[in-house]
Amino acid sequence: MRLTVRLVDIAARGILLHHTDAKSLGVLAGDRIVISSPVTGKATVDYVETTGTLIDQGRIGVYHHTNEQLTLTENEVVEVRVADRPVSLDYIKKKMEGEKLTREDIRAIVADIVQDTLSPSEITAFVVSSYINQLDMDEIESLTRAMVETGDQLSFHAGPIVDKHSIGGVPGNKISLIVVPIIAASGLLIPKTSSRAITGAGGTADLMEVLAPVEFSASEVQEMTIKAGGVIVWGGATNIAPADDKIIIQEYPFKIDQIGQMIASVMAKKFAVGADVVAIDIPVGKYCKVHTIEEGRKLARQFIDLGERLNMRVECALTYGDAPVGRAIGPKLEIKEALSVLEGSDSPRSLIQKSCVIAGIALELAGKANRGEGANLALEILRSGKALKKFLEIIAVQGGTPDVSSEKITVGEHFYTVRADSTGYVIDLNNHSLITIARTAGAPADHGAGLYLHAKHGTSLSKGDPIFTIYADRKWRLEKAIEEARRLRPVMVEGMLIDRVPNVREWVPGRSRNLE
Amino acid sequence: MRLTVRLVDIAARGILLHHTDAKSLGVLAGDRIVISSPVTGKATVDYVETTGTLIDQGRIGVYHHTNEQLTLTENEVVEVRVADRPVSLDYIKKKMEGEKLTREDIRAIVADIVQDTLSPSEITAFVVSSYINQLDMDEIESLTRAMVETGDQLSFHAGPIVDKHSIGGVPGNKISLIVVPIIAASGLLIPKTSSRAITGAGGTADLMEVLAPVEFSASEVQEMTIKAGGVIVWGGATNIAPADDKIIIQEYPFKIDQIGQMIASVMAKKFAVGADVVAIDIPVGKYCKVHTIEEGRKLARQFIDLGERLNMRVECALTYGDAPVGRAIGPKLEIKEALSVLEGSDSPRSLIQKSCVIAGIALELAGKANRGEGANLALEILRSGKALKKFLEIIAVQGGTPDVSSEKITVGEHFYTVRADSTGYVIDLNNHSLITIARTAGAPADHGAGLYLHAKHGTSLSKGDPIFTIYADRKWRLEKAIEEARRLRPVMVEGMLIDRVPNVREWVPGRSRNLE
Repeated sequence: MRLTVRLVDIAARGILLHHTDAKSLGVLAGDRIVISSPVTGKATVDYVETTGTLIDQGRIGVYHHTNEQLTLTENEVVEVRVADRPVSLDYIKKKMEGEKLTREDIRAIVADIVQDTLSPSEITAFVVSSYINQLDMDEIESLTRAMVETGDQLSFHAGPIVDKHSIGGVPGNKISLIVVPIIAASGLLIPKTSSRAITGAGGTADLMEVLAPVEFSASEVQEMTIKAGGVIVWGGATNIAPADDKIIIQEYPFKIDQIGQMIASVMAKKFAVGADVVAIDIPVGKYCKVHTIEEGRKLARQFIDLGERLNMRVECALTYGDAPVGRAIGPKLEIKEALSVLEGSDSPRSLIQKSCVIAGIALELAGKANRGEGANLALEILRSGKALKKFLEIIAVQGGTPDVSSEKITVGEHFYTVRADSTGYVIDLNNHSLITIARTAGAPADHGAGLYLHAKHGTSLSKGDPIFTIYADRKWRLEKAIEEARRLRPVMVEGMLIDRVPNVREWVPGRSRNLE
Repeated sequence: MRLTVRLVDIAARGILLHHTDAKSLGVLAGDRIVISSPVTGKATVDYVETTGTLIDQGRIGVYHHTNEQLTLTENEVVEVRVADRPVSLDYIKKKMEGEKLTREDIRAIVADIVQDTLSPSEITAFVVSSYINQLDMDEIESLTRAMVETGDQLSFHAGPIVDKHSIGGVPGNKISLIVVPIIAASGLLIPKTSSRAITGAGGTADLMEVLAPVEFSASEVQEMTIKAGGVIVWGGATNIAPADDKIIIQEYPFKIDQIGQMIASVMAKKFAVGADVVAIDIPVGKYCKVHTIEEGRKLARQFIDLGERLNMRVECALTYGDAPVGRAIGPKLEIKEALSVLEGSDSPRSLIQKSCVIAGIALELAGKANRGEGANLALEILRSGKALKKFLEIIAVQGGTPDVSSEKITVGEHFYTVRADSTGYVIDLNNHSLITIARTAGAPADHGAGLYLHAKHGTSLSKGDPIFTIYADRKWRLEKAIEEARRLRPVMVEGMLIDRVPNVREWVPGRSRNLE
């Protein structure tokens, strides 16, 4: 059937057909059709919505995101037909049945995810099946390669190319802002793609965006890396491993962390940027994705194993994840803190130490330092001011203003300090609660919003001492965040006594314990 | 936030917001919001799409199906807020983890499915999880009860109320058109809700629609059943166990038949119409849902067990499923065949026998016949003409024209007969292929389309004898169906020799078989 295009300004994927045309075509709302342009030869598959009035008979409404692929013009004539059932559905079914997927099966699934041939529900079925019937290392390798192949890739003539990754789950983990400049200052190339926060208070890309644009194509990332030695960009804009984002969106409602999928996701991005050596930070703690050192070691071995299969040298660091890294949480607050460290401040120590440990691993893997001496070299580069200079270069190459300093960053104008209501110790800092409060205050969308911790786990406080300050760009957001803080009580201050367990057994004075 | 309503004629669920309003509200395309009307107090949760032009700032576009729940009027002001994360997501996650769900967990999931609080992807996650981590009988019972409770129910003062169900998978299985009139003619009540074809060439509701309307509310079904003794309506219109349809839609792409889900789905509908006795037809065969007699027996026991938990007397018949029932496939062709049987024709025997067996079981369970004598009583009622009279009454009560007869039904005007190209036997009738050809010819949407089989499995044919005739309402559909028939070759006609397996071992004359 041939239909005339009407571009519809709905920011989604979708196709709008008149009832009558849908009926003639033999499709119902929700069915898949193929739309192809005789002009450009481009084609895509999309889902039908139907109307009796918004679109005339003989016309086809094309939503905004669908037209990003088709680049149709108003009144152009397109060909439409009912889409075939994608064969990748059979492979997803195979995984439901507990069978092992071949490299070709996984390639078909990933290709259909990237081309939006699979619906969100169908992607969910893949995610859930491979969550319950875990992917083995062969499948993980296939998934990694398929995600790489279906996106853009970088290639550098010089090497070794360095990359790093933090598994996440720890608030305030801004170390990339320090690690990337250190590595680039050492003379190595580090094309770092980062994520935006999904559930957190700010991903590295959200932080960097305070200082410079972060959305670039893969080839721009390559050029900028060659120029400045490193970049810190948002991976989502690059078309590097694009299947990954579509998969992650479906995991989000269930807070699924499918280990195989996560490993493939991380390693695909590293492989696609051409990394030779990769340092991976695995925070371990009560509120982290990894809860025990044993789990962490197992995960590390899987990363290393997959690295070998892909010819990348991988090393992992299990890091302390029970407390935020540094004291700042939220885009501008974290940028301010990272800049102050680059400028030479000797606090917060947790941020400096962790950055140097991770940068050190990468320097050792790349042959810039002997085993055990990487962290010292990293600290030396940091102290020398070369990392700051490199960071300003990176900001400049990405199109930001390089005359920035920690002093110049102004955080949210509305703030409130939560204080200790008794004398005692900070005995619990719940990462989840801290993130919730920061998000309620507006982070990461409101750049000035977030938290600054005055006290961390184990700190002794007197009544009235500040525990943390909440910052917000908007007053009503601050009020909401204060309410949340009262409800969640993220930092508990008590006497030395944590709890009393009363003994309900009768106590008879003078009677020996062993009598009965 | 308060926004003014603009009704949008898109036949889907959905909410359209201006970018700016979405941003102020803090939602992205795809997020869930709660819309409530201060006028009616009605509220619903739905997904946001965004636009820069289709809707002005301060206005909210409400799609057609969303407004079916809200009944908003143009320019009404509604209240919107970000929706909370539904707690049922945690229960779905629990099932992913392989844990057993409680009655309350399942009730929460089903309630959220019915209220469209869960997205299609989230329903898929439930479907896939309970496909991989099979539901046990407690969970199946909970699911059944929850599906009943979240919909309308019938209640009759007199009893016993009879119901029947066929598991499906066999083309031409029009027995309800004969069973329901027999049961009603015996003086029992049978409020039969049927399905439309999803993957088949015609569900019972598609067939009945040729003769009378089939879309009624639950209370109309109740009234009509009291009046005529029975009805044959489309279950999808009744709001009886409405969760079921929403679940089935998500199973469809993967051809999932989750046994627990299927049992709950069937039994919820029987329970909700107040059935006391239920006869269940389980076709067994190569192309059916159930492939072996053992599987069939196991499934039968599950139905009976669940029946006991719900206080319904259930009996199951394992039936021959390797060939179509009768000779006609497609709405008008099947109606014509069923009417001819009701009018007294003594063929096709498979249709008469199967209808009487299933009706007989119901008559025995309801105490109208002694054990083993039900089928004879059913045949007697059929032969007496009482079933035909009752069927015409049912057509009348549903608002159809009761002066119908098999003679008056005209099938598709375009037809083509496939003939044997050699002399031999019909050795394979592939149900799937027959259905595909009938669907390609236009069934079930084109009522006159379908197939009529002249020869069934084992029939001896001479070259040029007719095998089957394809009927279609539209010429181009007939042509497509002929093409499909050539491609699929559903009926193979060969000599007596099915295959030769050559013996590749050397044969030495005179040498004893036992020598070596």
